[in-house]
Amino acid sequence: MEHNLKDLEHLFHPRSIAIVGVSSNPEARRRDRFLRPLLDFRFEGPIYPINPKGGEILGLKILPSIKDVPGVLDFVIATTPARFGPQLIKDCNAKGVKFVYFFTSGFSETGDNEGIELENEMVRIANVRGLRIVGPNCMGVYCPRARLSYRSDFPKEQGSVGSLCQSGGNSIMLVQMGASRGVRFSKVISYGNACDLNESDLMEYFLHDPDTEIIAIYVEGVKDGQRFISVLTQAAKVKPIVLLKGGVSEAGTRTVASHTGSLAGSDAAWDALCRQLGVIRVYTLEELCDVLVTFQFMSLPKGHNVGIVGVGGGASVLATDECESNGLTVPMLPTKSTEELLKFTPKAGNIIKNPIDSQVIFWDPGQFDNTIKILSDWKGIDFILALLGSSDVFPSYSGQQSMYNLMAKTMLESIFTSSKPVAIVLQPGIYPERYEESFFAQQEFVSAGFPVYPTVERAANAIGKFIDYHNRDN
Amino acid sequence: MEHNLKDLEHLFHPRSIAIVGVSSNPEARRRDRFLRPLLDFRFEGPIYPINPKGGEILGLKILPSIKDVPGVLDFVIATTPARFGPQLIKDCNAKGVKFVYFFTSGFSETGDNEGIELENEMVRIANVRGLRIVGPNCMGVYCPRARLSYRSDFPKEQGSVGSLCQSGGNSIMLVQMGASRGVRFSKVISYGNACDLNESDLMEYFLHDPDTEIIAIYVEGVKDGQRFISVLTQAAKVKPIVLLKGGVSEAGTRTVASHTGSLAGSDAAWDALCRQLGVIRVYTLEELCDVLVTFQFMSLPKGHNVGIVGVGGGASVLATDECESNGLTVPMLPTKSTEELLKFTPKAGNIIKNPIDSQVIFWDPGQFDNTIKILSDWKGIDFILALLGSSDVFPSYSGQQSMYNLMAKTMLESIFTSSKPVAIVLQPGIYPERYEESFFAQQEFVSAGFPVYPTVERAANAIGKFIDYHNRDN
Repeated sequence: MEHNLKDLEHLFHPRSIAIVGVSSNPEARRRDRFLRPLLDFRFEGPIYPINPKGGEILGLKILPSIKDVPGVLDFVIATTPARFGPQLIKDCNAKGVKFVYFFTSGFSETGDNEGIELENEMVRIANVRGLRIVGPNCMGVYCPRARLSYRSDFPKEQGSVGSLCQSGGNSIMLVQMGASRGVRFSKVISYGNACDLNESDLMEYFLHDPDTEIIAIYVEGVKDGQRFISVLTQAAKVKPIVLLKGGVSEAGTRTVASHTGSLAGSDAAWDALCRQLGVIRVYTLEELCDVLVTFQFMSLPKGHNVGIVGVGGGASVLATDECESNGLTVPMLPTKSTEELLKFTPKAGNIIKNPIDSQVIFWDPGQFDNTIKILSDWKGIDFILALLGSSDVFPSYSGQQSMYNLMAKTMLESIFTSSKPVAIVLQPGIYPERYEESFFAQQEFVSAGFPVYPTVERAANAIGKFIDYHNRDN
Repeated sequence: MEHNLKDLEHLFHPRSIAIVGVSSNPEARRRDRFLRPLLDFRFEGPIYPINPKGGEILGLKILPSIKDVPGVLDFVIATTPARFGPQLIKDCNAKGVKFVYFFTSGFSETGDNEGIELENEMVRIANVRGLRIVGPNCMGVYCPRARLSYRSDFPKEQGSVGSLCQSGGNSIMLVQMGASRGVRFSKVISYGNACDLNESDLMEYFLHDPDTEIIAIYVEGVKDGQRFISVLTQAAKVKPIVLLKGGVSEAGTRTVASHTGSLAGSDAAWDALCRQLGVIRVYTLEELCDVLVTFQFMSLPKGHNVGIVGVGGGASVLATDECESNGLTVPMLPTKSTEELLKFTPKAGNIIKNPIDSQVIFWDPGQFDNTIKILSDWKGIDFILALLGSSDVFPSYSGQQSMYNLMAKTMLESIFTSSKPVAIVLQPGIYPERYEESFFAQQEFVSAGFPVYPTVERAANAIGKFIDYHNRDN
């Protein structure tokens, strides 16, 4: 069944929402799990908590049944046990509901005939009226523009990344990790077992969605390989796609079957598909996030030549190795540039050949500006990697302004003057106080629109993939 | 020149220390850089700040010259500009000083004839009387047993890791990263340009040092290849050695020359050497730290088969992939074990085949104990990886005890009951409040003697290297 943008409109922009299965017991743990985020996000339509026993929750009356909902009902969040699924679908059909998403698990992913049959039965009933099921065994929909979220702590601003994420937990990690580094989302949907609405439907939606400029996928398996390849092929021609395939090892494939009841497909097949279509394949959630950060904040460098500036000799040596072992090149500065740097950089304690390791420039914004100018003016490099290092290295003295913060401030002001793209490596502090210091420094760079990475290795890898994506043949 | 334990005794256990070049200006930034750590560590011998202008610092009188130091003087920390180096060495000779370490840079690493000549001259003068120079261009000595440290924030307890670290900044990162995960050191020495005392002398010392059970090296280059190979060969027969070579890429090699004036050697040569001698080679400081954590806290598993227990379906799928792609095996549980687990683990929402993904066991310590018993009793697995996940996934509700802390507590109590080795993966929280929560949870696991890693990938890699080390041929 093919679907277009309009068909899924009310999935991401429902006019009203019912939450079926909220506990009537005020003491129940996490009974406000799906309700509170909607209230915190100030979802604009009516919200109806449902439980046959009635009662009240967060100031809202609990209705006994979906039938009691007044007016139109687009979207139902189901947290009832699996065995009540088919009856719920019947009630939704009767009410004219458009989408039901099942947080509930205990369906086909258990491998039991009972669970499989329940799931099949729900789909059969739903299809009669064109009701679409999301999940079961999933976390739901996050669409900041519609003030729709399954977590109160997700960002309320919208962005340009659309994500279809088969795992609910991984979708939470992706949004949280991305958010702290400035990534914002158009829509994120966790779609679990994909018994009805599946990865191809969602990919097709994101392909056409004008709010989505880049597509991030976490997929464990696909329902209809041919259709998925066809939709992925179309989408990859139009928007960058970053793909994390869960279940690539033998044991991982077995685990995928237990998690979302999916058929995983071989690692080699996925690899070939991604290469052929120009889909960016990643292997961890961290790497997925690194690539999104790069697409969101990095200007495209012309090539792989990087100029490194930072502090710490050993750190500079390791940074150089990490760049070169991840496909970047760290070319030696020409004599002319070195001589210019030597006008204000002491030889003692500094490295001035690319990488540039110099602490003195951090104490003199004018010198940092000059260093950036000399680096970015040289045609031998395509972009700059600025290393702030770890706040644990720089001792803080009571009663004095933190060295680390002073250094971050100088660096932030100077990198604005670069004529070439700049990326930041900011290693988070270890001890909580230092972590907080580095976290807030990171926020400054993020707010200023710079891509920030926790290690050189991760920066080099993501930036390399970004450059390669734009230089691919097709 | 060969040296033994006794020769370097006063380097790590000096009876008195002078710091030459402390500023007489009370306003000077970081003038207490090397003095304060000695006071904070309660170094037991006398400490003499030296500056011709005199004055006072932190309650100590500043003496005009080394000649004015009363009694024996074993150890001098030099922070004076390079050009004063030769005269300082003469003064030290006259006073009978045994070791001078030069924080100062501006010597051979600049590549200038002037710096090279200054360094050579110092060595010539020092060798007349048997005075040994550490550095120049280094951070110094950390020996908690001797209450000697170049940082106030290093741990005061001693441990069993001896580290020779050519870069001062990297030595700080290694101690800080290790400390937060429970690694403790016998001695750490940053030795910079190694103009006199070099990596072979130090390796030989650590080989014989009874306080050192494992040796960690960060090395950029060696002064005498033949001697180094000979000492490394001896040491590798007696103690585990973990080696991080800085400057393996072409640009890295060039950077090493500018950093510590060393000749780097080819990556392939280092690789062959490590393989041949059973030296564990690592590629980042993080990986070095992971391996040290493993040697310090992990009991040796009999093989590479791992049982995984944690929460989160997608997290379990990715954990399985990360284990298998790092040389571990995640075998499927036999029916007997699965049936036992099913007695108390609901099928819905859980994976019970290895990995075991079950949130319910985190709410019932008895069930977690049973899960650990079933996993560790099965002969098909050699150790357990327990995943706590990220605290950012588990929402905290105001006025309620943190879910994450409850989960950590249950897990910590249950893993004690395992009959097989257990390692923990605890992903640090992202937002400062969550980071703090995860940091303190980590401290609980560390205090209880468990190895803790931030990602499954890093755990699998380090544990794999640990097992392989013990199963090597020689």
